[in-house]
Amino acid sequence: MDKIFIGIDFGTDSARALAADSCGRILAEAVRRYSRWSEGTYSDAAAFRFRQHPLDYIEAMEAAVREVASSCDAARVCGIGLDTTASTPCLTGSDGVPLALTPRFSEEPDAMFILWKDHTATAEAARITETAKTWGGPDFTVYEGGDYSAEWLWSKALHVLRTNPGVRAAARGIVEFGDWIPSLLTGAPVLRGRCTAGHKGMWHASWGGFPPEAFFAAVDPLLVPLRRSFGPETATADVPVGQLSPEWAGRLGLPAGIAVAGGAIDCHVGAVGAGIRPGVMVKVCGTSTCDILVAPSVDRPIPGICGQVDGSVVPGLVGLEAGQASFGDVYAWFGRFLGYAGKVSIADIEHDAAAIPPGASGVAALDWFNGRRTPYADVSRTGALTGLTLGTTPPAVFAALAEATVFGAKAISDHFAEQGVAVDEVVATGGIARKSPYIMQMLADVFDLPIKISSCDQTCALGGAVFAAAASKTFGNVPEAMNAMAAGVDREYRPDPARVAAYAPLYARYRDLAARLG
Amino acid sequence: MDKIFIGIDFGTDSARALAADSCGRILAEAVRRYSRWSEGTYSDAAAFRFRQHPLDYIEAMEAAVREVASSCDAARVCGIGLDTTASTPCLTGSDGVPLALTPRFSEEPDAMFILWKDHTATAEAARITETAKTWGGPDFTVYEGGDYSAEWLWSKALHVLRTNPGVRAAARGIVEFGDWIPSLLTGAPVLRGRCTAGHKGMWHASWGGFPPEAFFAAVDPLLVPLRRSFGPETATADVPVGQLSPEWAGRLGLPAGIAVAGGAIDCHVGAVGAGIRPGVMVKVCGTSTCDILVAPSVDRPIPGICGQVDGSVVPGLVGLEAGQASFGDVYAWFGRFLGYAGKVSIADIEHDAAAIPPGASGVAALDWFNGRRTPYADVSRTGALTGLTLGTTPPAVFAALAEATVFGAKAISDHFAEQGVAVDEVVATGGIARKSPYIMQMLADVFDLPIKISSCDQTCALGGAVFAAAASKTFGNVPEAMNAMAAGVDREYRPDPARVAAYAPLYARYRDLAARLG
Repeated sequence: MDKIFIGIDFGTDSARALAADSCGRILAEAVRRYSRWSEGTYSDAAAFRFRQHPLDYIEAMEAAVREVASSCDAARVCGIGLDTTASTPCLTGSDGVPLALTPRFSEEPDAMFILWKDHTATAEAARITETAKTWGGPDFTVYEGGDYSAEWLWSKALHVLRTNPGVRAAARGIVEFGDWIPSLLTGAPVLRGRCTAGHKGMWHASWGGFPPEAFFAAVDPLLVPLRRSFGPETATADVPVGQLSPEWAGRLGLPAGIAVAGGAIDCHVGAVGAGIRPGVMVKVCGTSTCDILVAPSVDRPIPGICGQVDGSVVPGLVGLEAGQASFGDVYAWFGRFLGYAGKVSIADIEHDAAAIPPGASGVAALDWFNGRRTPYADVSRTGALTGLTLGTTPPAVFAALAEATVFGAKAISDHFAEQGVAVDEVVATGGIARKSPYIMQMLADVFDLPIKISSCDQTCALGGAVFAAAASKTFGNVPEAMNAMAAGVDREYRPDPARVAAYAPLYARYRDLAARLG
Repeated sequence: MDKIFIGIDFGTDSARALAADSCGRILAEAVRRYSRWSEGTYSDAAAFRFRQHPLDYIEAMEAAVREVASSCDAARVCGIGLDTTASTPCLTGSDGVPLALTPRFSEEPDAMFILWKDHTATAEAARITETAKTWGGPDFTVYEGGDYSAEWLWSKALHVLRTNPGVRAAARGIVEFGDWIPSLLTGAPVLRGRCTAGHKGMWHASWGGFPPEAFFAAVDPLLVPLRRSFGPETATADVPVGQLSPEWAGRLGLPAGIAVAGGAIDCHVGAVGAGIRPGVMVKVCGTSTCDILVAPSVDRPIPGICGQVDGSVVPGLVGLEAGQASFGDVYAWFGRFLGYAGKVSIADIEHDAAAIPPGASGVAALDWFNGRRTPYADVSRTGALTGLTLGTTPPAVFAALAEATVFGAKAISDHFAEQGVAVDEVVATGGIARKSPYIMQMLADVFDLPIKISSCDQTCALGGAVFAAAASKTFGNVPEAMNAMAAGVDREYRPDPARVAAYAPLYARYRDLAARLG
């Protein structure tokens, strides 16, 4: 009887569960939206405040996993693995329970999970970055690209502590979304996940774990008690946090006592689901991109990326993260823009754009419509269009925007190469990867590499199942589990030599434009 | 019995005639389109070839003037003045008759008038500019901004001579549109008009008129016979070319023997109709702009403008021309662009754009959608949009485009000021001046000067009537005729101090962007 593993992918809007066997065959899938979040109850987009109630996660997970469990032979399930958005932390009491799960704070947004894209902590992020550069000790941001973000753990913690006295008085700890779920399901203490801690929390082995209290005291003494609630240890996601508790076994319709793996960040787990290995960039192409690489070792901090953390993707390898802050969002923007005058089909524009030979329109763009993430994050950067004439058409602009997003992707790959991390192959996943042959062919032509499209739509949840398989000791380690279970490739875009040659000078023009407008 | 003067404005698409009395009151007006031109018969927009048949001019003029003459007391008409597009030359036989009026060449585009915006002579223009810089004698382009244009007389002549052997064999001379009409109406020999000769033909008193044969031999010996057909003299437009012939008196319904003034360029004559005087920039704001100034003297060649010619606007003053190659065309482009998705109203967008405080959107543009004309003509320059984000709306882009065109206008005015020609006042005419309070108020705020809107829609034709009045000796000189007849101002946009302050840094940003993308 083959074993079954449950992977749970907690995305921004919904939780998705799947059941996979030890060959990676997907046996069942289910998805549930976060109900309070869908109604926008605790958020304020205009203020970039995005909060999610822990009950949303619990209810969506319970319903999705129950449906999956009821669709397969639940008795054969041997483990659960999961990924979440990050950094999405929540302040807790001394018992590790999110404050929003207590009656007093059940409607308090500051007591809920602070979603990755919440930007309320901008001032606190600047304070942390500045302190890291000037406090006299190590710069704890060097393995996270050199700038501490408003989207990350300590910025968000400090922002709430500074601005909400009631929550401040009650808070005794803070937990990342991906670390809380395994603790909830097993009753075991929180085990800090290496992936989130290393990419978002300034954890690094070289300075003994998280930064010391003295550093946080220099940032703001309010952070010191929180820091004390952290031990030095973190764990990779193949390490089981504990066993599924009888209560949660009943609620999920699964056997009690099965292994629950540690949580990790969605794209990192997705890279495992897509079968990442050294030399392969797994590129999640959606509204934005997340680009994941692994390397046996990296001999120095790489500037200007989103982080490099030992074991954050595959245990035993250094995981490297980069990305573009807008990708499909740029195409969607242009659709909305033209929509001012009437209904517009992006597919029609793309069709017309694809008929324009590379460079023929003379229009060039920069893709930083949502700021620049990699290389060298700078949220103040903006998009641009140049080469406009009285004859410029919407398809020509769409082509230029598409080229800019692909050139932005190439700039990331070149940055890695310049830093000694070569990209030999690209595996693309995500909505744009499956929907747009136009963009994928352009990626192949600009990268001058085959672009392989993952055969699985749900590489994140599948990656969760891979970690479940490793945590349950069904396989000896994560690479063995990946080898058996990770998704293959069902389509490949090969470079067209004529278009490779045509795009080369346009990419040089993009780099020049980026420098001119920098 | 008050005298009446006929002004004829030969535009790109039509001829307009008006009758004005000696107080500048307009008594009658009529307009006729060029019929062959309307059908696109001899042009090829894709090749930038634009040709007009002389019969178009004759037929439109005859019908328009007859209508005007029949609507007023024709017996009181004492003179005719006119303006035309320029440089719009035509090759002629030894009798001065345009070749297209002979049976052999009646359907030959190269034997017709080559419209100002025809760009077929790009290579020939480059050859002339290069020769002027290197031939060892004076640089004959210095009073025309330093670059000889494909839109001008000698480039166009050389292009046809080089490429059309049949026309080359028949050609004995060449005539500018504005010089041909007075000769036609009077039977007098062609009198080269100072305005066109100086701005488009490299005529300048300091080197004894047109450049010498040796220069043209250095450019291409094909030009030498044409050059020999030119005398050294030119005349300002107040000088009568002759008297209306009996034949044309009959055809037009006007008295024979009345004075026919010399022709000049439309915007220059329009500046006279708008009452130009030193310190006043007359700004014709249409699809493009033409900016005219006059000064008692200019002590050196001003680089990067479209020409400075003694007497080209008002006899006795130096006329200076500058302009933007696209202005209203940029707004129209954006309308067409959005029109890809559906019907769009520029008025609606303008309304929404006007609600955005200066600089609030962060979007900045360059206005060179049709190349840059002044300062420093460069047809290879293109438009740009920067500061784009996922939240950028069409009105924000429209506002940025509007600002860019107005900043482009300000850059011209600043260039004149830097060269010692101050702009103390701006009088605006043309379609945009009358239709868009939004753009005109922005001009006032960016220039920090009152913008006065001419009360006359037809300052060019009115300027023709002014020259007719001067040529008929009804007034002692052009300034006296202008004083009596030129249009007044019927609206004034005054700078708003808060917006003046708001636009100042945005103009600095425009200059910076222009430098970065230069």
